[in-house]
Amino acid sequence: MATDTRERILDSSGELFRRQGYMGTGVKQIIEEAGAPFGSLYHFFPGGKAELGAETIRRSGFLYGLLFPEYAGPEADLATGVRAFFAGAAETLVATDYADACPIATVALEVSSVNEELREACADVFNLWIEGGVARFVEAGIPRKRARALVIEMIAALEGAFVLSRALRSIEPLEVAAEAVAGAISAAL
Amino acid sequence: MATDTRERILDSSGELFRRQGYMGTGVKQIIEEAGAPFGSLYHFFPGGKAELGAETIRRSGFLYGLLFPEYAGPEADLATGVRAFFAGAAETLVATDYADACPIATVALEVSSVNEELREACADVFNLWIEGGVARFVEAGIPRKRARALVIEMIAALEGAFVLSRALRSIEPLEVAAEAVAGAISAAL
Repeated sequence: MATDTRERILDSSGELFRRQGYMGTGVKQIIEEAGAPFGSLYHFFPGGKAELGAETIRRSGFLYGLLFPEYAGPEADLATGVRAFFAGAAETLVATDYADACPIATVALEVSSVNEELREACADVFNLWIEGGVARFVEAGIPRKRARALVIEMIAALEGAFVLSRALRSIEPLEVAAEAVAGAISAAL
Repeated sequence: MATDTRERILDSSGELFRRQGYMGTGVKQIIEEAGAPFGSLYHFFPGGKAELGAETIRRSGFLYGLLFPEYAGPEADLATGVRAFFAGAAETLVATDYADACPIATVALEVSSVNEELREACADVFNLWIEGGVARFVEAGIPRKRARALVIEMIAALEGAFVLSRALRSIEPLEVAAEAVAGAISAAL
């Protein structure tokens, strides 16, 4: 079976986790939406749904981690870049009828107390984001300790704003969070 | 069947939703942990799991809403009260091995795109919290528009910090979020 079948399965699980979480997504639905034969699931993921879940989290997390430098890379003013990053998230949320936010947060809340393998995958992603963010914030001139606090504040603000924005069907929480984080960054610079 | 059976069912579903979400919780488990007869579920909640879910969200949300004024009521300095509120949440999280955070956020992320009845219940809870918070912040002397932004920032920071803290098994995100929000409140006062 071609490797692109594996990619299609992971794209499908990533999208379904974003919209309805890990527990609400069956492997049958993942395979169907990927247009893949059922046997391909256990061919590529012998550990079944948990292995596919962990790989989905790590892969989605890595891809999402690439979005931040697209908006707030070294060429941009950091506070302006952070505002653009949040605005991009808000735009995607509205364009997808408030469905596409972050698949990691949903899974992290669902599984952190019941599945150690998946919790560790979520923790690895958050640590990757924190490390990448700290490097960028330090480069912008913020001392490392303050940079770490600001990056954690930013990720928490984004994830929490996604929770509120999806439930309220409003981008107000994302707009508020963006201003709070950008203001804190400007004050630190 | 006694009304306290209904309360026990709602206590049980509230706790299970906090730990493992709505989709990962079966009605059989809710009834068993409540020590209730199976028939009592449909006696008290003719609409089944969705009706029980919506009632759980509204009831948990109301009870959680009472926690904030316990820490940050009119007799307390607002920024100090907010720090104590976050510290209380962190203490509970550690005491429950990072399980007991907020049942509303987990359900909001799981169901917002797939179950309108439950999404509305989550939205009602968040709006209740926002309104209660705005009243307290205005009373402390913050203009209404700024108060609304600060309250949304606070709730988003708390919910997002829960996501990170549960996945990372660390209260650092809650501590960082508390300082960020308390600092913003002090600046606004």
